[in-house]
This record gives sequence, structure tokens and C-alpha cells, in this order.
Amino acid sequence: MKLIDNMVDSADRGLAYGDGLFETIACIHGKLHNWSLHWQRFCVGADRLKLVLPQEALLLEAIQQKLQQANAPDDNKVVKIIISRGSGGRGYQFPESSQSSVIISIHDWPQRSASDYNIGIMVKVCQTCLAQQPLLSGIKHLNRLEQVMAVNELGSHYQECIMLACDKQSEVQNSRVIEATSSNLFFIKNEQLYTPEIDLCGVQGTMRRAVLQLAEDMYIDVQQGHYTLHDLLDAQEIFFTNSIYGIVPAASIRVSDNIHWSYRRTTLKSITAELSAVINKQLERPVL
Amino acid sequence: MKLIDNMVDSADRGLAYGDGLFETIACIHGKLHNWSLHWQRFCVGADRLKLVLPQEALLLEAIQQKLQQANAPDDNKVVKIIISRGSGGRGYQFPESSQSSVIISIHDWPQRSASDYNIGIMVKVCQTCLAQQPLLSGIKHLNRLEQVMAVNELGSHYQECIMLACDKQSEVQNSRVIEATSSNLFFIKNEQLYTPEIDLCGVQGTMRRAVLQLAEDMYIDVQQGHYTLHDLLDAQEIFFTNSIYGIVPAASIRVSDNIHWSYRRTTLKSITAELSAVINKQLERPVL
Repeated sequence: MKLIDNMVDSADRGLAYGDGLFETIACIHGKLHNWSLHWQRFCVGADRLKLVLPQEALLLEAIQQKLQQANAPDDNKVVKIIISRGSGGRGYQFPESSQSSVIISIHDWPQRSASDYNIGIMVKVCQTCLAQQPLLSGIKHLNRLEQVMAVNELGSHYQECIMLACDKQSEVQNSRVIEATSSNLFFIKNEQLYTPEIDLCGVQGTMRRAVLQLAEDMYIDVQQGHYTLHDLLDAQEIFFTNSIYGIVPAASIRVSDNIHWSYRRTTLKSITAELSAVINKQLERPVL
Repeated sequence: MKLIDNMVDSADRGLAYGDGLFETIACIHGKLHNWSLHWQRFCVGADRLKLVLPQEALLLEAIQQKLQQANAPDDNKVVKIIISRGSGGRGYQFPESSQSSVIISIHDWPQRSASDYNIGIMVKVCQTCLAQQPLLSGIKHLNRLEQVMAVNELGSHYQECIMLACDKQSEVQNSRVIEATSSNLFFIKNEQLYTPEIDLCGVQGTMRRAVLQLAEDMYIDVQQGHYTLHDLLDAQEIFFTNSIYGIVPAASIRVSDNIHWSYRRTTLKSITAELSAVINKQLERPVL
């Protein structure tokens, strides 16, 4: 493991090709939240990209040192870890054993208004679609231009952007819904919980995994499958999951001038509220 | 323009998201080869990614300084330029005006055996396919994991790897042929020259553009379209184009244990030889 402080070799493959992985982890009062899920995703990604990971214990030690340097033993923080393949190789070709670069950075805990949780957020469906590439789907690699371009469609009015698969449907409503730019999504219809399967594109979020596990523990059935935008707009509730923000419900979704969706809770105690009561409490975020 | 020497800020968006562009340019006795084509592609890429380019004159000046530092006024060299969006923004979101980072590096001119040009190279069709994403196709951005993974399928026996579109055809031979990992491809069938259209994926190579222009000047018709692997295997000649290597013919292509293609020139003076007589001479590479 080559631990990098502030400056990276300009020949690093992370910069040259996006040849690496990253994780963004909530640190609650000095404790990494869902670390095992983040580490598991690093392992899946490293296996897929044939990348050498540092030893887990050494990485954890380095993170603790960084947190101490940041002088934040009890504050909530965001820990970002980039693991790139380091320098070396001929062009795209990587050497069989290269020393990975590890970059750990500590960031302030982002605040979020209570109304985002109580009322929900304004969402739009963005133009930038997700290309279908099974080799790269699920893992959190450094090739993120699609997300960068999607987020920059948002403008000041919307807080999240739903991404569809690039599947060339003539009607946008027949396109597959995958996720949002920095979160996965779930929806509820007739008290059944659904979430898009992450098989051809999209990221397997750690919070998505945590919610799936929690739902199982609470005997709430979750269907995973291929759902279209039409399916989504037929839902009664929609919520987003993210490792830093927890569970955030949608208040409304804009598809086009004529097509809108609005939150319509039908039961007193919704599934979204039940799940967020556990998840958001862990992250010290408002419960619905 | 923020000119970067050896070390890059670890918060650079080029590293974090592959948020930037690059070019690899042949420098023949101190003169940048096909500079205008490289600059044009930078412009198309910057427009697509809403990235701010440095002024062309300032960039050229910086390249000349780097070449002088490398003490190589008359040697042939490779000049690589990375232009990333720099640091800044919130997560994926980029600031409306950010200062791009520019990294210029000078590399040795790679030798290549005369037999690669005279006999041709051994090629295989790789498993890693190219996801179809019109937003990113054609331009030379920093999201290159597909190429990295494809090249590393090569092993020691093959010199180039043909990439097909990820289009879920049940028969591999019905999949669209796009390019090779670091070159575009052309093929000749019954004295007609063809090259895959770069619309949904792939890179618009500068050497591809130079060959298209030269063919026009020589009254050689080129068809651009959607061609399958089956079409390619029906060709008499196949060649690859790259800004550093010029025109390199294929000697053989391996698809699977049962499916092979071998070079079969049918006429005395082939189109490949005619084009390479001009292009490869410019790059001081062997002519066919």
C-alpha cells in the first residue's frame, strides 16, 4: 500500500484512465458506519478489475490516523477512500503486480434540512442515461463521467436526478429505471417494496444492501427486478438510499412538462417510515 | 490554465471521476503531427463535457517548453496532454467556472518491428465489450476502464484486441465491430474500403480522420456504417490506425478455437499499401 497524502503522481493510472475504486463512508462519532459493506464492495471491485487491495487492518489503521489528524474524535465526518492501480504499465496495459495508491480524505459531515426527510425532495428524470456494461456494473469505480454529467442537469430547483438505462426505447416511460446519481432507489406499490436490480449498470450501494438486510430482518418482502419508468410512476411511495444521507423520500418527480409524479401515502404507517426509523437513527438523520 | 508538473492535487476531478480529456500526439523532429486534428477533438470533448480548455496558443507554448526541457529538439517523441476539470465542486457536481488542470508529459518514441508492418500483427477479439453511450462516444475522455480491461486480455501472443459493442447478440458474429483497444480499424472487401461508424461508442481517432481525408484526396471511396464481426471476417484486408503507429495491417484474427481470419490480399497493389505509403512515411514508420 502506497499511502498518498495531498499530491498524486501525475502518471497515476487513477488519473490517466480512472483505473481504480472509491468508497465514501459515514463516520459517526469516530466509528465507520457499515464498514464491512464498504470493504466487501472494495473486494468485489478489486476482483473485477484485478486490482491489489491493501490489507484491511492496515487500511483501517491509516483511516484512524487520518481521523486523528483531522482532530475530530467525536464529530461526524465523511471518509473518502480512493484506491487506484498506481503508476506503471505500458499505456492501457497494467503490470501484473503494481502497488496500489491509497488516498484517504476526511470531509465535513453534510447537513440536510429536516424538510428533505419530512416532506421529501424534488426529483427529476435526467437526460444522461447509464450505458449497459456488466463488467463495470455494481462496483464503485473511478469512471464517473455519466454521474458528473447527470448531476449537472439538475439546476437549482431539484435535489436528485433519476437515471435510466441507455436502452433506446422509443417511449421514455418504457426505459428501465436504475438509480439516482448518488443513491439507489426503492418504491412501494400496494404495500409491496421494489428496487431495481443492479445487473447491467448502476452501483450496488452499501445503503441499498443495508436496507435489503433490514427489510429481511423485519419480514418485509423486497422484489428486485427490471422496472420501467412507467412502473415507478405507478408507485405510492419512492425513496432514495445513500451511505451518508440514509433514507430520503421523494416528494415529487418531474419527467416532462406533462408527466409528473407526487407522493401519495395510502396507509398510516408506511414502509418508508418503518425502515427510516432504524436506518436514519443510525446516521443521526431525521426519521420520517 | 493551471499547468501541473509532476504532482496533482489528490482532490483533482480527473482522479476522482475521470472528469477530463487527453490526447497522445506524435512529435516528429520537434513538430506535432496532426495537431489540428488533436486540438479539434479536444474542442469537441470540451464542448460535450462543458469543460474549459486553455487557449490553444498558450497550450502550444507550454508543450514547446516541455519538449525543450526534455532536451529532444530533433528526436521523435510522444507528447501526452491531460486536461481535467481541476479541483472543486460538491461531489459529482462541478462548479460553473473551474480552472482546468493541464498535465503535459513527454515520452520516448516507441519502436515497432518492421514485421508488424510487412507481415501484419496477430489480433484477437476480446471479451470486454464497449458500452453504448452516445454522450461519451467519439471523444477521448479519461473514463478508460473498458480499454484497460480489454488490453489485459491480450496475453503475450497477441498484439491487438478488437472490441465489439455490448449489444447482447446471441451470436458473437452478429455483434457490431467498433474499434481496437488503442486504434480504429478499416477493412477492404472487393476493393471497397469500410470503417465502423463511431456513433454509440468508440473513439474518433485522429489517424482515422487523417486516413479518411487522405482516401478522399486519393479518390478512394470509404463506406462508414454499422458492421458486424461477420462482415469483418469476410474482408480481404484489415488494418488498424493509431496516431503514433500509423497504419498497421492484421496478419490474423482469432475469434474462438474454431473461428479464425487470415490476411488474403487479392490484388498486387492493395489499398492498405497505397494509404500507408503516405501515412507511415509521415511518422517514419515502415511502409507496407
